Amino acid sequence: MTKKEVKVYDAPTKIQDIEVLNTYQLEKLASDIVPKGGFDYISGGSGDEFTLQRNQTAWQTKGVLPRVLADVEHPDPSTSILGHDIRAPFIMAPIAAHGLAHETKEAGTAKGVAEFGTIMSISAYSGAKFEEIEEGLNGGPRWFQIYMSKDDELNKNIIDEAKADGATAIILTADATLSGNREKDIANKFVYPFGMPIVSRYLTGSGANMSLNNIYAQSKQKITREDVKFLKDYSDLPVLVKGIQSADDALLAIGAGADGIWVSNHGGRQLDGAPGSFETLEGISKVVAGRVPIIFDSGVRRGEHIFKALASGADIVALGRPVLYGLALGGWKGVRSVLEYFDEDLKRVMQLAGTQTIEDIKQAQLFDMK
Amino acid sequence: MTKKEVKVYDAPTKIQDIEVLNTYQLEKLASDIVPKGGFDYISGGSGDEFTLQRNQTAWQTKGVLPRVLADVEHPDPSTSILGHDIRAPFIMAPIAAHGLAHETKEAGTAKGVAEFGTIMSISAYSGAKFEEIEEGLNGGPRWFQIYMSKDDELNKNIIDEAKADGATAIILTADATLSGNREKDIANKFVYPFGMPIVSRYLTGSGANMSLNNIYAQSKQKITREDVKFLKDYSDLPVLVKGIQSADDALLAIGAGADGIWVSNHGGRQLDGAPGSFETLEGISKVVAGRVPIIFDSGVRRGEHIFKALASGADIVALGRPVLYGLALGGWKGVRSVLEYFDEDLKRVMQLAGTQTIEDIKQAQLFDMK
Amino acid sequence: MTKKEVKVYDAPTKIQDIEVLNTYQLEKLASDIVPKGGFDYISGGSGDEFTLQRNQTAWQTKGVLPRVLADVEHPDPSTSILGHDIRAPFIMAPIAAHGLAHETKEAGTAKGVAEFGTIMSISAYSGAKFEEIEEGLNGGPRWFQIYMSKDDELNKNIIDEAKADGATAIILTADATLSGNREKDIANKFVYPFGMPIVSRYLTGSGANMSLNNIYAQSKQKITREDVKFLKDYSDLPVLVKGIQSADDALLAIGAGADGIWVSNHGGRQLDGAPGSFETLEGISKVVAGRVPIIFDSGVRRGEHIFKALASGADIVALGRPVLYGLALGGWKGVRSVLEYFDEDLKRVMQLAGTQTIEDIKQAQLFDMK
Amino acid sequence: MTKKEVKVYDAPTKIQDIEVLNTYQLEKLASDIVPKGGFDYISGGSGDEFTLQRNQTAWQTKGVLPRVLADVEHPDPSTSILGHDIRAPFIMAPIAAHGLAHETKEAGTAKGVAEFGTIMSISAYSGAKFEEIEEGLNGGPRWFQIYMSKDDELNKNIIDEAKADGATAIILTADATLSGNREKDIANKFVYPFGMPIVSRYLTGSGANMSLNNIYAQSKQKITREDVKFLKDYSDLPVLVKGIQSADDALLAIGAGADGIWVSNHGGRQLDGAPGSFETLEGISKVVAGRVPIIFDSGVRRGEHIFKALASGADIVALGRPVLYGLALGGWKGVRSVLEYFDEDLKRVMQLAGTQTIEDIKQAQLFDMK
Repeated sequence: MTKKEVKVYDAPTKIQDIEVLNTYQLEKLASDIVPKGGFDYISGGSGDEFTLQRNQTAWQTKGVLPRVLADVEHPDPSTSILGHDIRAPFIMAPIAAHGLAHETKEAGTAKGVAEFGTIMSISAYSGAKFEEIEEGLNGGPRWFQIYMSKDDELNKNIIDEAKADGATAIILTADATLSGNREKDIANKFVYPFGMPIVSRYLTGSGANMSLNNIYAQSKQKITREDVKFLKDYSDLPVLVKGIQSADDALLAIGAGADGIWVSNHGGRQLDGAPGSFETLEGISKVVAGRVPIIFDSGVRRGEHIFKALASGADIVALGRPVLYGLALGGWKGVRSVLEYFDEDLKRVMQLAGTQTIEDIKQAQLFDMK
Repeated sequence: MTKKEVKVYDAPTKIQDIEVLNTYQLEKLASDIVPKGGFDYISGGSGDEFTLQRNQTAWQTKGVLPRVLADVEHPDPSTSILGHDIRAPFIMAPIAAHGLAHETKEAGTAKGVAEFGTIMSISAYSGAKFEEIEEGLNGGPRWFQIYMSKDDELNKNIIDEAKADGATAIILTADATLSGNREKDIANKFVYPFGMPIVSRYLTGSGANMSLNNIYAQSKQKITREDVKFLKDYSDLPVLVKGIQSADDALLAIGAGADGIWVSNHGGRQLDGAPGSFETLEGISKVVAGRVPIIFDSGVRRGEHIFKALASGADIVALGRPVLYGLALGGWKGVRSVLEYFDEDLKRVMQLAGTQTIEDIKQAQLFDMK
Repeated sequence: MTKKEVKVYDAPTKIQDIEVLNTYQLEKLASDIVPKGGFDYISGGSGDEFTLQRNQTAWQTKGVLPRVLADVEHPDPSTSILGHDIRAPFIMAPIAAHGLAHETKEAGTAKGVAEFGTIMSISAYSGAKFEEIEEGLNGGPRWFQIYMSKDDELNKNIIDEAKADGATAIILTADATLSGNREKDIANKFVYPFGMPIVSRYLTGSGANMSLNNIYAQSKQKITREDVKFLKDYSDLPVLVKGIQSADDALLAIGAGADGIWVSNHGGRQLDGAPGSFETLEGISKVVAGRVPIIFDSGVRRGEHIFKALASGADIVALGRPVLYGLALGGWKGVRSVLEYFDEDLKRVMQLAGTQTIEDIKQAQLFDMK
Repeated sequence: MTKKEVKVYDAPTKIQDIEVLNTYQLEKLASDIVPKGGFDYISGGSGDEFTLQRNQTAWQTKGVLPRVLADVEHPDPSTSILGHDIRAPFIMAPIAAHGLAHETKEAGTAKGVAEFGTIMSISAYSGAKFEEIEEGLNGGPRWFQIYMSKDDELNKNIIDEAKADGATAIILTADATLSGNREKDIANKFVYPFGMPIVSRYLTGSGANMSLNNIYAQSKQKITREDVKFLKDYSDLPVLVKGIQSADDALLAIGAGADGIWVSNHGGRQLDGAPGSFETLEGISKVVAGRVPIIFDSGVRRGEHIFKALASGADIVALGRPVLYGLALGGWKGVRSVLEYFDEDLKRVMQLAGTQTIEDIKQAQLFDMK
């Protein structure tokens, strides 16, 4: 891909409500309109994509039992997390470079998220500036996800900016201290077609025309308990450690002061050969034992999955790729359509599984299908 | 689909005996002659159709052991249920809108069922009136399946009519308090091409040109133990609670007065991500412990499956889609052909498994193939 | 298929050594030259062919461990069974109607088997007469497999003839008291193109132009412990009960006087939905505990399978379909080629698994691969 | 294949760095340029290739857990084995006839291996002479793998030559006392297109135009504990017994004096129906209990696999086919590219799994995914 080609990256532009039959169909529809390099970046995983696929098949190890004669009608999926009341137990996951999906970039996603009524996660690798995103968010709740610089002064600078923007929590992505083996990106010789204003302060360039490998290498490659403490102390905000897949690491993070455990395998984009994220959840939630909230991501595509994650110990889930497909297909309205779909689908599952509230889901017993 | 197209829904009309090689082949043959919207409605499941498929693969978790040197010749599959002697341990399941499969609607099915010699279940969402169905049933045994109104006076009215028609039991469908996520129907924009005379009294319309979603929403969406008691008290008939998939709900239903437990996941049409119906049977039958009969459905396509269900605790099974394919292909004669096939196939399995009677099947040990 | 078409059943006729790369390839090659009705009859199973396939996949539940530094060179697969010394631990299984595969019928198979140096099983549904088969066997060892008449006088008559022919054991097929659900035969409207001289004495016809269903129905449909005793007493020969798939039936047969337990599910041709035959072997051999020999069949296609069966308790295995494919492709020479292949393949496995003798195989530990 | 055709075996000749997206892609690319007979010989397995495939799927039984907040940056994969310091925990496996992949034969492989910085294993079935290989190795470390002659004097002669060449260990391949059932080679009527100078002293010919079957048959077919002792005593070098797949054989080899246990199923080329090599590793490493080093091969295609093998008890792994594909595609530079790829890929896994050193990997807990 030449610089010239990069310049003409042809992101979708439509803003419209979309019909969501299911999110797998959205992926297919998005693949038709998002340029191949961008689509492969968004949809792809690392290595054999074993873990990417396992994130899906892992759901089949547990069944939701239909329940009847229950005191359920018009179930209520609302909940709260870290002081925010949200319409439904899901938020937007931090994802880099929304501009690959739509010309409105993170501002489009943010508007859809805010209109729906949940929390936006702003990635440090955002292609939009905080003030551009705020145009969409319009005061809605937001968390800031950080890829740290090797220079803590710059980290302070980034945190200052995020706090000024109104972030109420810091998400520390701990599982991406270097780039996963994204074979599709390598084959495509993929480079970002635009810059990353938040982290460009510590990159050799703006981010534009740079590979993921290159950008990760310029970010901090060793993230330790000290970083959790640093972020917590400096920001005075709750710090959520993202990328936990083992009970030991959950304890480590809590010991370092984490205010939330974010169970994730980065959507199968980092360590291939890892289990499905859902497979690790139950063991982690047992040791966390309610001390801090658990946020779950990687593989959530249906209301059924949200139900299974919550019944296995998660407090909320984060949605990633499906929302970006909605962004691609309909801008902020497409984002809202996708979130409404998840809300509707979850409520249907709640009704058929005999659960009136989020608390009821957490008490539900799943059926072992191994 | 426009109203005009609905009017010309072109249901099959042939009345003929059919050769049944197996019921999977019938499904394929039916798909050639039943209009796509109707065929997808009948054959489809919800969501990913995971549970629909799991209803099939679940049979493979247990093997029927060939048994030899047994005192078996010309096995006898006859049995009785709730006072009815029937030729074989299977009855017709309640299914809505047989008119999608054949112009003779439920009357065609009823005639085939009566001619064979077992029990007809009449769905509240029948497209035919009781008196039309009676033309086919001709005095044969029948149970009435109710989708309740939100208005109990109308429910009394419906029960009065069903009793007057001769129903000897009430089937309370408890797992369909709203429509499952039938993606094929949504994609097809499927609406019923004709009315539902039994429940039209509580619908905003006749049922014609209405979607399943709409009709379910107008039916009672909260079915509780009180409803079991109400139906039992008012009808003075045995009440069977249909849609049980957990031991806890079986106990709940019995506690509420249920006279039979109907193990079913609605043929994979309601809660996707649920286990196969057969997977749940053994655990339920253990807690029911013979106190009330167990009727099993969802996934029965061969005599082998009937054998496995009975050996796992069911007293009888209910047959659904395969009978409707027979109806499509040959009207009442096709229905009879399908039931004769199941009878023949079951007797073959009984002989090769060394079981002379239904009681022998119930004592048989299955082989664990997990 | 009209009578005329039956008359011109065009069985292969070539007599030649064949190269056996593997027996799966033979099946494919045979399908090219054996008329479809005959090929489907030979190769097919019952119902969904689940059990037919499971006979193959069941081998994968156990691994043969490579063993090294063992005192093994040029392993010796010879063994003996019921007084016969044989070159290798396999014999010819009883199969009906070899004439479907080759014009030389059972005589061709018998010659190949005798030339190789093992035991021929002669089926009561043979298309050749005893004296025709003897032309091939030429004094070689033989066992006689009986499908009993409903009339014991005729059974005596058949046994007299088999004894006069030199049979040294009677195989009582107990798992085929009626025909399995052979869907391919039904779809093909398959009838035997020629008669069955041994059992024609109790059929309404010669066997020609008759379906398998019809012939089974005219044979004895209730085989009990009394039949084992009758055959033993009248023949004064060892009686092997064939079709055992459960430990209970093995005990039942031994209690009735059986001199050998023949573990088989009839090659997946009788009760579909049954486990793979190999899955049942270990449990049976534990209760038999060496009191009588165990013969195993159903799914043996490689030396590896023979090894696994012997390591799981079988004394010898019986080979069926692969030998008939050899017959089709090369007459008696083809049969011999197939048996030589199995001998060669078994010796290779023996060497690589560190086993010098059949006794060594029986002591080998398989690796659990479930 | 006629002698003339053999003479014109058209091995690839290019020498170039290659881009390695993954090693599966290399296999595909190599299949395009290596003559079919040679490619099938290199890539193929025995029998059904069940074990060949199981070597791959076995990796999926264990997951590598992503680990975070670890004290890891720029992980160090260097290690040492039998006194050699090597850059990474992998060496070149002994493979016959590299000339099938590239005209530079073993000399090309050796140069790539030496340039990378690890150990070359020289096969007794090398197509190049020791002095030709030394041209590539250029003083780098080497181990010599022996296929023994039936004549111990010739074995002494071979060992003398290997020692003179500088071998620091003898690899005794114990699992190939005759050729596996290589069906592709049989179908291709594959013979080596060139001689094997090291073992030609005990063959009836040079090795050229001879089949693998023929060559194995002329090699020693009974390898016992005495051979381990003989090699050890005569060579005064460490002897590694290769082809161990059971704990019992590991103990046997150690008892006979083995200085290392080489866990391998010969890449699925010998005993088909065996478990995947990785499945056997944990049990073996438990009984070896650190007394001697464990070398692992069969199925290593990614850094993930190296990690899993080391976490399951291996000290180093040996790489085979992927290196030969590198040789085919780029001569010694291609070999180096492949080894660099494995190094890079392993370091990425180490970082993401929170392991700074090889010792850390050995302490890592894998996630059970059965």
